[in-house]
Amino acid sequence: MADNDSLSEFLASAVDAARKAGDIIRKGFYETKHVQHKGQVDLVTETDKACEELIFKHLKHLYPTHKFIGEETTAALGTTELTDEPTWIVDPVDGTTNFVHGYPFVCVSIGLTIGKIPTVGVVYNPIIEELFTAIRGKGAFLNGNPIKVSAQTELITSLLGTEAPTQRDKLSVDGCTNRINNMLSKVRSLRMSGSCALNLCGIACGRLDVCFELGFGGPWDVAAGAVIIREAGGVVFDPSGADFDIISQRVAASNPFLKDALVDALRQDQ
Amino acid sequence: MADNDSLSEFLASAVDAARKAGDIIRKGFYETKHVQHKGQVDLVTETDKACEELIFKHLKHLYPTHKFIGEETTAALGTTELTDEPTWIVDPVDGTTNFVHGYPFVCVSIGLTIGKIPTVGVVYNPIIEELFTAIRGKGAFLNGNPIKVSAQTELITSLLGTEAPTQRDKLSVDGCTNRINNMLSKVRSLRMSGSCALNLCGIACGRLDVCFELGFGGPWDVAAGAVIIREAGGVVFDPSGADFDIISQRVAASNPFLKDALVDALRQDQ
Repeated sequence: MADNDSLSEFLASAVDAARKAGDIIRKGFYETKHVQHKGQVDLVTETDKACEELIFKHLKHLYPTHKFIGEETTAALGTTELTDEPTWIVDPVDGTTNFVHGYPFVCVSIGLTIGKIPTVGVVYNPIIEELFTAIRGKGAFLNGNPIKVSAQTELITSLLGTEAPTQRDKLSVDGCTNRINNMLSKVRSLRMSGSCALNLCGIACGRLDVCFELGFGGPWDVAAGAVIIREAGGVVFDPSGADFDIISQRVAASNPFLKDALVDALRQDQ
Repeated sequence: MADNDSLSEFLASAVDAARKAGDIIRKGFYETKHVQHKGQVDLVTETDKACEELIFKHLKHLYPTHKFIGEETTAALGTTELTDEPTWIVDPVDGTTNFVHGYPFVCVSIGLTIGKIPTVGVVYNPIIEELFTAIRGKGAFLNGNPIKVSAQTELITSLLGTEAPTQRDKLSVDGCTNRINNMLSKVRSLRMSGSCALNLCGIACGRLDVCFELGFGGPWDVAAGAVIIREAGGVVFDPSGADFDIISQRVAASNPFLKDALVDALRQDQ
């Protein structure tokens, strides 16, 4: 287990990397409107790759013995196994559809697992300048100020975050709208931001009370958010109520009061 | 018809009023987390009323012969008829659920109709500091910079904005999720921000390509947004494809290329 000084240094390094990647994202964000569609797609790929390379280079130089899992690298080289070694798990641009359309929920997500446990997390939205950070056991912060999950105790007055499925076959779409139909009678309202990592941070700072998502990209969407939520006093779990599995592509989160109610409500969608 | 100088003055007055109301909203926004639920509801009501009073007082002092329609006043006194007279139509806090939960899509919406036509519009989000403005015939602006709708020509690569219904009877909920189910196979993705006025501004600045909403509060949700969209090169219409009716509580909007495709797609939801 790394000591506290090391963890603080890891966080500072991740923040540095996230801010540098944020500069690239911000530049691309305001350029996407001026390029043709084919150009937009290229710009996304280029921005994704440039940010991941920048972050990996920055962190590998500092921590040559650590392991690395990134969305772009995994897409290119296939699955990378998560081990007990310190492992940086990086989504260089979370919310790529938002990035293309100029919708301001876009972020860099950098998580560090040690013994497979999310231990350091940075989620940075360079468009609206929000930096979420956490170290396991040391609290969670938004732009340096401590954050905590909401105090809601009733599902019916809760704000729910979820997303449309990336898969658009009939089974996935029907599953999504059946869940929404079921949940709409049980919560106050529903938000879809287009960024899994920012939904998790929304739980951490109490903007959202409950959230769930099935079938997102990979562990890079949730590695940083998981430690940020836990350090803000929240809980991260499988939508079935089982333990959170970082590689399962299934996540739910809430303050501690609402977990059981959310799991029960999601079960009724059958 | 008011001359251009008058319209510029009307806009400047509306911006002044919106910024003052924005100060109250910003203060309340960061306080809601620290009050109990009953207190939150009171805070919403108080903020809504304080902002509407401030805006009405500011504008009535300057324009004593103009008519006024506000969400709070209408809620208290019943429907106010829209006439051909210059009429200020005001939503002091659009996105009240977001306000309570601290979700940063909250705005003041101030529209002026002349001959029932939306002629001056101000939508101000004091949390992320975005000020959308327009005068009929004079273009639309975000924080002083010209904006225009997106250049998307295909629905399948479009980003759609809509909202969960405020009514939660089975008919309303099923209607909503059937529409979402139908649309999810026809668009790139879906966003729900919780603010009708900000969705309209999202169309105006090209963050969203298409949007629709049925059964929202009243003309105060759309009066400002309608002129902002039109001045950004977009179109506002009834979701059936018929002409936009500001008092119908039904709205759709898009860039000019996507109107027919959106109307066709919404028709297929039967």
